[in-house]
Amino acid sequence: MNWKLTLTYDGTDFHGWQVQPGLTTVQGTLAATLRTLVGEKVLPQASGRTDAGVHALGQVVSFALETNIPRENLHRALNQALPPSIRVITTEPVGDDFHARHAARQKTYEYRIFERRRDGEEQVCSPFLAPYVWNCRWPLVYLEAMSEAAKDIVGRHDFTSFGASDPDMATREDGDGVNPVKTIESSAFARERDLLVYRVTGSGFLHHMVRNLVGTFVDIGRGAMAADCVPKILAAKDRTAAGPTAPPSGLFLHSVRYL
Amino acid sequence: MNWKLTLTYDGTDFHGWQVQPGLTTVQGTLAATLRTLVGEKVLPQASGRTDAGVHALGQVVSFALETNIPRENLHRALNQALPPSIRVITTEPVGDDFHARHAARQKTYEYRIFERRRDGEEQVCSPFLAPYVWNCRWPLVYLEAMSEAAKDIVGRHDFTSFGASDPDMATREDGDGVNPVKTIESSAFARERDLLVYRVTGSGFLHHMVRNLVGTFVDIGRGAMAADCVPKILAAKDRTAAGPTAPPSGLFLHSVRYL
Repeated sequence: MNWKLTLTYDGTDFHGWQVQPGLTTVQGTLAATLRTLVGEKVLPQASGRTDAGVHALGQVVSFALETNIPRENLHRALNQALPPSIRVITTEPVGDDFHARHAARQKTYEYRIFERRRDGEEQVCSPFLAPYVWNCRWPLVYLEAMSEAAKDIVGRHDFTSFGASDPDMATREDGDGVNPVKTIESSAFARERDLLVYRVTGSGFLHHMVRNLVGTFVDIGRGAMAADCVPKILAAKDRTAAGPTAPPSGLFLHSVRYL
Repeated sequence: MNWKLTLTYDGTDFHGWQVQPGLTTVQGTLAATLRTLVGEKVLPQASGRTDAGVHALGQVVSFALETNIPRENLHRALNQALPPSIRVITTEPVGDDFHARHAARQKTYEYRIFERRRDGEEQVCSPFLAPYVWNCRWPLVYLEAMSEAAKDIVGRHDFTSFGASDPDMATREDGDGVNPVKTIESSAFARERDLLVYRVTGSGFLHHMVRNLVGTFVDIGRGAMAADCVPKILAAKDRTAAGPTAPPSGLFLHSVRYL
């Protein structure tokens, strides 16, 4: 039986999604748990990798098991056996041809920013919030420009400038192949209580792409980059044209859409 | 100059407040940070110890420094040098006779319970919530009885039955001396979104007292102990009469009141 799971995880203590020898990863933990539960050695496939420290609200994974196990039992057994930092939200049997990565049509990411200095006041970032935000030291005084710049990526573009700079990383796919042309459906900032939240939905994302976008938008917000720089950065097709990579702690894979 | 700080900390990764050789504690981390910042070896005193895994929203500590340092500078330097899991909310110079433990008149604790089975439905405890709650496996069907039992401790009582069972621990003070007679001003449960929150305010608390109270209330809520057991437990003056110790993850030192 082929299975589709929706997972949420706190990435703080994981070395990312993908199995790495000697390191605790989400994929490795899930594989080890499945092996213990059903005695099968399977490597679950995710909609895309998440890096060390990146969180998931709705990561989708798939794997096939030979053992016949009722849906409810698999769901309950996984949540009993997995550490509290990984939870299975839904467990569904799916057709044999379903593959969490190949079948993914659209993803939404969320990036949470805490402004340490806001409206001229020093803010204390709660220790309970710190692992889930970018505790940003700069006052983001050009918030309107950030919001406008976020809209500049909507549409179909070559995102080479916002891909990972390391050549090894640049060719690494984030689950969407190495084609740097992606279609962004929405890209916007919103103030939500103490946080500035960026949400982006698109056909796919290059490795580090969301964090490089946020790093660039924050540079615009603090006045270190021009308000209209995004179209130029896209045109340059050069990683060095964009801003720095925002830290992983603020990033959440929000959801994955399938047909 | 004598200083009074209000701290908030995420206790997950600390072996409690009190300095212990070879272990990371809040007191040890604060002392090491002060030593680095001002070159003085001081041991900050808290309103009371918190155990490993217990959190603080408003812990109060005091210490004296010989170095003359402006309030704003000390405050900012501490928040820059401390790990993100400890934040200084307020920094105030106080009279030489102020001592965070001796001067404490009243404390409020909060205990957060997540009900894994609620109204017959299996609930998934978010990985982002798990370190800050008791992920309770029992359905708390006698919630009304729990709420009534919580009221039974209001007033002046001998709390020996709710103190730590280990004789070593029982004589350990939680910052309030070993007198087992305490005055509880309020003690109540409230439903707050996904959580069941217990709040208790009193003149002082024995070691493990809040967790032993919550363990007993939960036993009442799941039907394992009688609704009217609390007065009998208090009268017994015997730790074995009460319920089990609730896990540390759900406990928060909320605030400390001084005259």
